[in-house]
Amino acid sequence: MPRYKLLVEYEGTNYCGWQRQSAIKPSIQQSIEEAIFNLTAQEVTIAAAGRTDAGVHALGQVAHCELDIDWPCDKLRQAVNAHLKFAKHNIRVIAVEKVGSEFHARFSAIKRYYRYLILNRPSESPLLNNKAWHIFKPLNIQLMQEASEVLIGKHDFTSFRAKQCQAKNPIITLDYIKICKQDDLILIEVAARSFLHHMVRNIVGSLKKIGEGKLSKNELKEILESCDRNLAPATAPAQGLYFLKVDY
Amino acid sequence: MPRYKLLVEYEGTNYCGWQRQSAIKPSIQQSIEEAIFNLTAQEVTIAAAGRTDAGVHALGQVAHCELDIDWPCDKLRQAVNAHLKFAKHNIRVIAVEKVGSEFHARFSAIKRYYRYLILNRPSESPLLNNKAWHIFKPLNIQLMQEASEVLIGKHDFTSFRAKQCQAKNPIITLDYIKICKQDDLILIEVAARSFLHHMVRNIVGSLKKIGEGKLSKNELKEILESCDRNLAPATAPAQGLYFLKVDY
Repeated sequence: MPRYKLLVEYEGTNYCGWQRQSAIKPSIQQSIEEAIFNLTAQEVTIAAAGRTDAGVHALGQVAHCELDIDWPCDKLRQAVNAHLKFAKHNIRVIAVEKVGSEFHARFSAIKRYYRYLILNRPSESPLLNNKAWHIFKPLNIQLMQEASEVLIGKHDFTSFRAKQCQAKNPIITLDYIKICKQDDLILIEVAARSFLHHMVRNIVGSLKKIGEGKLSKNELKEILESCDRNLAPATAPAQGLYFLKVDY
Repeated sequence: MPRYKLLVEYEGTNYCGWQRQSAIKPSIQQSIEEAIFNLTAQEVTIAAAGRTDAGVHALGQVAHCELDIDWPCDKLRQAVNAHLKFAKHNIRVIAVEKVGSEFHARFSAIKRYYRYLILNRPSESPLLNNKAWHIFKPLNIQLMQEASEVLIGKHDFTSFRAKQCQAKNPIITLDYIKICKQDDLILIEVAARSFLHHMVRNIVGSLKKIGEGKLSKNELKEILESCDRNLAPATAPAQGLYFLKVDY
């Protein structure tokens, strides 16, 4: 039974997120599992590097599964995509690779990368509909960059984790936060071995307050050190978040 | 009666193009005119810098109209957008400016810029659905860049105009064609005072053949000089084309 590593891109708007849920919208996981079932008549459970929330997109999600069929990787990619396309899913497998049985999409990952997009201009963008967080008042990028330094490194990120987060350990080492501007877009890129539930969106929610001048670098530091989610600003919306890639 | 210049962005997938037509899909022009009518109860006809086809997008289309109301520009922008949003249109006015009565969105334009996006990788992209031309076989960018030189400058572009093109003069001065690659995307940017109907998409259709190695630089030159549309490759699809901006 060969084990396959799948690189997956999706537009998350019409999905309840990666994980199967008893929701009206389908999940990404379920949609891929169904495509594989329609192809192979095999019921598989696929594991992913990161369980993205409803509305979150991915450019380089990674999943793995074991299949009875032993196909060339590119043939498998095309066949799964044909089924995803037939079912009108906004999900495609970008690349397939055979991996050893020790490979696990979630547990073998050593670094995860996310990007968050803020559209910072007066008008909404029809071309970025559901693909960025629209903030019409100008944000001060420099303040955001300076304040973000407080979060880099090893910290207890309890103030930036969802209350329903199931991770045992809230200590995370944040490798970097890069904030840059391209025309009307603000790109926020973060990397760490792992992230807590809603952690990126909660960080972005705070950085937005900083950019508005409503929160200072020192206050952000106090929020971090308080380990109290109630003191931190609101979570940024899902639609601006992209799961970029995973290192193994 | 103040004259307003409107900078407009749209996602063209669900529209029959800029111009009103007796089609099932609405036109961009009609949708904006209706938003203005719902706002002002005034029936206006708006003129645009470039009449984009069905499925073509715009980041910086320019239109103008004369209105009875004399409003601050930003108030007008917000009000028109509120009506466009209420009608669920994928169209937004990005900026409004008051201009003199000599200004004409179409006739005052001195340069127009278009961009064409090709997604060049094996799999489709859910995040670029309807927003790029997907070509799964690798294109040779260098060949495309070299061959594009043939088209720069002043030429009779009859071989690259749609047969139904109504322009009196097929002589166009093409200022530049820039072709570059960003990851899996090929960006083709062109600028000229004006373009013929389907001209950008016909040029891209030929450059694609060049990139595939199925057409040479010399053959492209012969096609251009033949002034015969029948000799040129097929038109590239609308979904990859973006009307970028206009100089006045």
